[in-house]
Formats: sequence, C-alpha cells, structure tokens
Amino acid sequence: MGEGRPCGLITLLTDFGARDAYAGVMKGVIAGLAPSARVIDVSHEVPPQDIRAAGIVWSQAIPYFPPGTVHVAVVDPGVGSRRRILAFEGQGSIFLVPDNGLIGYVLGKRAVRRAVQVTRPEHFLHPVSATFHGRDIFAPVAARIALGLPIDALGPAARSHRREELPPMRVRRLSRGAAARLRAAGEVIHIDVFGNAVTNLAPIKGRRLVRLEAAGAAIEGLSPSYAAARKGEPLAIVGSAGFIELSVNQGSAARELGLAVGDRVTALWK
Amino acid sequence: MGEGRPCGLITLLTDFGARDAYAGVMKGVIAGLAPSARVIDVSHEVPPQDIRAAGIVWSQAIPYFPPGTVHVAVVDPGVGSRRRILAFEGQGSIFLVPDNGLIGYVLGKRAVRRAVQVTRPEHFLHPVSATFHGRDIFAPVAARIALGLPIDALGPAARSHRREELPPMRVRRLSRGAAARLRAAGEVIHIDVFGNAVTNLAPIKGRRLVRLEAAGAAIEGLSPSYAAARKGEPLAIVGSAGFIELSVNQGSAARELGLAVGDRVTALWK
Amino acid sequence: MGEGRPCGLITLLTDFGARDAYAGVMKGVIAGLAPSARVIDVSHEVPPQDIRAAGIVWSQAIPYFPPGTVHVAVVDPGVGSRRRILAFEGQGSIFLVPDNGLIGYVLGKRAVRRAVQVTRPEHFLHPVSATFHGRDIFAPVAARIALGLPIDALGPAARSHRREELPPMRVRRLSRGAAARLRAAGEVIHIDVFGNAVTNLAPIKGRRLVRLEAAGAAIEGLSPSYAAARKGEPLAIVGSAGFIELSVNQGSAARELGLAVGDRVTALWK
Repeated sequence: MGEGRPCGLITLLTDFGARDAYAGVMKGVIAGLAPSARVIDVSHEVPPQDIRAAGIVWSQAIPYFPPGTVHVAVVDPGVGSRRRILAFEGQGSIFLVPDNGLIGYVLGKRAVRRAVQVTRPEHFLHPVSATFHGRDIFAPVAARIALGLPIDALGPAARSHRREELPPMRVRRLSRGAAARLRAAGEVIHIDVFGNAVTNLAPIKGRRLVRLEAAGAAIEGLSPSYAAARKGEPLAIVGSAGFIELSVNQGSAARELGLAVGDRVTALWK
Repeated sequence: MGEGRPCGLITLLTDFGARDAYAGVMKGVIAGLAPSARVIDVSHEVPPQDIRAAGIVWSQAIPYFPPGTVHVAVVDPGVGSRRRILAFEGQGSIFLVPDNGLIGYVLGKRAVRRAVQVTRPEHFLHPVSATFHGRDIFAPVAARIALGLPIDALGPAARSHRREELPPMRVRRLSRGAAARLRAAGEVIHIDVFGNAVTNLAPIKGRRLVRLEAAGAAIEGLSPSYAAARKGEPLAIVGSAGFIELSVNQGSAARELGLAVGDRVTALWK
Repeated sequence: MGEGRPCGLITLLTDFGARDAYAGVMKGVIAGLAPSARVIDVSHEVPPQDIRAAGIVWSQAIPYFPPGTVHVAVVDPGVGSRRRILAFEGQGSIFLVPDNGLIGYVLGKRAVRRAVQVTRPEHFLHPVSATFHGRDIFAPVAARIALGLPIDALGPAARSHRREELPPMRVRRLSRGAAARLRAAGEVIHIDVFGNAVTNLAPIKGRRLVRLEAAGAAIEGLSPSYAAARKGEPLAIVGSAGFIELSVNQGSAARELGLAVGDRVTALWK
C-alpha cells in the first residue's frame, strides 16, 4: 500500500458532546456513503471550541492508529465563515480539519507531505448548512477518502496553513560545566479524567529529576508508578504521552494540589 | 431493494446514560443474534424519561441515516406496564419504539406505511424483565429485523398509536396587504451542547427577519454564520435542522441570555 | 466451536471517561492488530479506581454477550506496579483484567476453567509505559486473543488470584416453623442513571415480600412495574439483574429517599 492509502478506518474528534445527535449524525452520513468504513471516537468531549485542548487529546491518540486512517477533527468556532477546511497527508495517514491551527499538534511542519483545500462541492451533502459542516462536509468527505478518493480531488493545493503548537519547555543551565544542574520551565497543559496534571516537560536524557515544583508543592524525584507512592501522596511520573505529570496515588492531583491548565511548573535536573 | 428493506444498520436512542452498562448490554444482545449488524449511537443522554427531548434529538438524526436502517428508541417511562411496543415502516426505514408518542417527532402521520404491535414472545429474550425491555425486547427484535424478519411477523397490526409533535409556530399578519409584516410566536425547544437555543421557528419563504425577541433580548436580523457576529455577541441563525437558533459567537446563548427550554420567542418578518 | 473460542468481539470496561482519548486509543491499537475485531463499550464511566462499582456494572453486562467474547476491564489503581495482569477462561468467554479482585464479580470460583499470568512481552506494545497498560498491554493482548491466540501463550498459569465479591445478604428466621417470617439484611450496592437504588437482596423463592426498609422509608410489597406505582411514589421492584431495587416512578429514589451506596436495607418476607 502507498503512503496514506486509506485502510477503511475513520476517527472523530469533536466538541459535540454526547447529549445531542451531532456525532451520531456524522456516523449516519458516513454509513450511508461508505458502509464498510469503521468509525472510532477519539473524543467528543473537547471543551467547546478549545483548539489547544483538542490538539492535546488528538496528539495523544493519533500515533496509535494504523496507517491509512482518516482522522477527522471538528472543533470549529469558524464554521460557516470563510475559514478554510483542509486535508493533509502525513505520517502515513490523512487528516481533515478546519484551518484553525489544530493540525500543528499532530503533524510537524516537515511531516506534512501534502495539503489541500476542501472546496469541491460535489463531495458535500447539500444544502450545506451554516452551522454543521461536520455533517455536511467533514463526514461525506471523510467517507469518500476512506473509499479511496485521493485528497487532490478535494480542491486546490493549500500553500500555507495555520499551526498551533504546544508551548516549548525552556531549559537553562544553572552553572558552567558538564555537571551543571538544569532548570526547565513549563506549564500544565492538560488535566485528565483522574486529575493527573500533564505538563509540557519531557524527561531530559542522561539527567535525573531532583525536584518538580508547581502551585506551591514540591515533589522529589520521579516515581516509577502511581502505586510506588503512598495512597493520597503526590508524585511525579512520566505519563503515557512521554510528558511529566503531577499525580496523586489513588487521588486527584488537580483537586488536591489545586492545579489547573496554564499553571507554571519548574523542574530541576541533575 | 424494497422499501424498508434492512441495510444491516441499527441506531440506538435512549436515556440510559454512559455510567451503567445498559447501552452496552443492548449491543451485546444484538451482537449475539446478528453479528454482522452495525450499531450507531444517536444518543444515550436524553434526560430521563423526557419524550419531547428525545423526539427533538431523534428528528435531527433520522434524515441522515441510509434507507433500511432500524431506528430503536428506548425512552420508556411505562416499561413493564401494559403500554405497547410498536414497529413502524416509513420513510424507507424501520422504527421500534414504545407507544408513548415519540414516533410523532420523526414520522408524519401520512409517512407511516405500516404499524405493528410487538407482541410475539418468540422474538424476545427470556425471562422478560419488568424493568429493562431495551435488553429483553427492543435489542433482540431489532437484531431480527436487521437480519430480515418482516415487521408483520412481530405481532398484529396497530390500528392507532400515540403521537406527540413539536408545538406549531403561530404566525399572524400585523396589517393588511401583501407588504404586511408578520409576527411569528414560538418557543425554545432545545438547548444544545454549545448553549445554542433552538426554537420551533422556521424561516418564512420570501420574508426577511427583522427582529427576534426572547428573554428580554432582541436580535436584529439573521446572521450567515456564528463568526459573522463579534465574539461574545448574540445572534440569530438558521440551525442545522432548519430552525432558527439564538446563539452567542464562541459563547453560550443559554447561559448568557438566560434561556431555557419552553421560553417564549417571537420573530418579526418583513 | 470450542469453549472460549474467540468470536471476534471485544468489550471494554474502564474508568477512562469520555474526555480523554484513552478509550479511543485502545480501539486504535486493536484496529491496527485485528482489523476485523469488533469492539463494544460496556462503560468508561466507572468512578476512578472503584473496583466494586466496576464489578457490579461488569456483572450486569457479561451474561448478555455471546460466547467467545474477550472481556477487558481496565480499572487499575496498581498500573505500573508489580500487580499482575491475568487472563481467564470461563463461562465460554475470555477475561483480561488486573489481579485486583474484579474477576470475582463475574466468574464464580468454580467457573474459572483456566487462569494465566499475562507476562510475555512479545504480545505487548513497546515501550510499555508505567501509566497506561490499557494501551500497551490490555489492547494488544485482547486483539491477539480475538485473532485466536490461546491464553496459554500469554504466560505461566496463575495458581491463585484475588477475588472480590458482592456482600452476601444475611437471612434469618424470625420464629420457628415453616410459616416463620424471614428477615433479610443487605445494602445498596449501586445507584443507576435513573436514581434506582440496586440492593444485594434477591427475591426468596416461595416467599412474598411484606416490607422493605431503607433510610427511614418503608415500602410495602413488590411492584410489578414502575408504572404500577403513582408518579413520584416509591416502590420496590425486581430489577433487570435479579436484585431488588428501590425506585420512584418517574423520579429518582436516590435523590428523593436520600439513598447512597452502602446504605443498609432490610426486607421482611412472609
């Protein structure tokens, strides 16, 4: 199979919630056009119109889907306006997303092999509403891509596109010499369902974490597992996406340490 | 394929929520009887036993599924009592639903091509409980319909059935003559996940919306998109189901205008 | 087909919620390894790390899935520690679960036909994280079992395992003789989405319920259906899992009677 050849799998990431039929409707449209396509929900509980939150959830999911998956993200405050919808090929898969920066969380600049504007109305559901492009554009286009339509058929090439990215962690040496300690500054980028506070700080190769500080709390060293700390005790651990998280064994670090997205975090490395 | 011939697709709409296994159990029963059937969730977050809320969500979803879909709705305060369960053919699809009025939101009176009482116990799961007909009747019957069982085999014809419908919008002329303004009176029928307040007011052909009033707020004219209003500003827009909605660009109209289901809305048309 | 031969169906029960991508990621891993496997969600809304709540939901679901289903439960406070992961064969199906007692809710001691430690790393996703074995171990192992890998290939036999079980109901005779009344003492084990308070009290064969008492309320006799009581009135009913529940017709018994998990319940039988 060629790079980006569809495998019949479509994923959905939206802020549509579970109460309305919006996500189900997208699946109905897909089932009508591509009955053999399979659809997997990444999440429909992105906070409304929160592109960064969507990007962080999306970036945790994408690497674990097979090549040729069509990844659809509809977190789209600009729906119905002149904002563009783009299709990307990269990392062996296809991405369908509003041009609002979200793609930056999952496809590095150089990983974009092709970018196309989704403009050809013969692939849409008509009449196209002003408020639900998930149903009228994203779902039918995703179905057609899953059936084999090359993304070039969707419209003209996109010469540029908007990109958001995670805030970078900033690292500085605290003294001269190879043995100098490093201080890394970052922030809480996500609170997960367990109350784990995911940061943008990654482990530093060849270094050992001395102390992690956030919201007035200080944690010594990295824990090999949640259970290595006593029940209710805060700990730092390398989470499943490779970032350092503040956690509480069998508790919620967000609640118990008072942590929220955007809080500053600093790490001292030896 | 004949009218209403099953396509192997089943949709579920319930008030079962996500915490219990109830929806999953229905899928288990279906998978055991009809392994090749595919199941799509319309929603399981209908407010408990709220038939109108269920009807509005259902009516937004049904038109987007392929013909031959078996649509199952279990919002069923009368479970275990003598209320009937009915199967309908209409609009090219099959509907399985308690006889509590819900069908009225998705099948107009003349669109009902056949209505049958679901009474033949050989199609049920036994013993039939008094509290979970979703598992014991709806799921196995839906599976058998998806496999090709004609609905006539489910029991005797239903000569009548209960129907709820959306409240109608009431339109009156404000003066004589072709150029007379029209005033339409309606209500908020649904608050969606974004806080959009969906009304029962539809656009009037050949007319232009002058003003929309609700909960003390007045909005001038229809917006072509959410983003055509300034961030945080209220607007009126034709929503994806064809009804006029009160929205706030990147905000919640329900919260910011204090709107709730049942609130009166009036529209002035020129 | 032999006992426990996989039917291509995998169920998931977790405390991962819907906001994060965790459940979707497990499905992505499964789709990559076993594209023909079908996945059904039992629930992802188990309260974090609550093994009993998970067990009760699991026990309600398992009997309704076809033989050969691979049932995966990831409610796993010990993730990353030395707690074991076990695979069981029993009741014609396969169970994949941390060794934290959860299996006891769905497989009686004698129903366990085979128990194996999941240790062979060639079946895992690498690198194995310390925090997300759902992705790195449970999902790929479930996919391989669904494809036909015998559980013996996963690691050495497990000679013992932890088991939790529902608290037993305690029954005593109130006097001598065949006509003696019985008093059964139990507790509320689950509050469902409707506010029904499920107890661990089962009906007693040949006996009639005289009175059910909990939280200061007393209910006379069993109701044949919710609707047999007046709207808003408390009732006792045999629920869909065979246990007696306290309910309120078209209301929430939990809210209206002030009931919570763990509350004592007594039943008088004649």
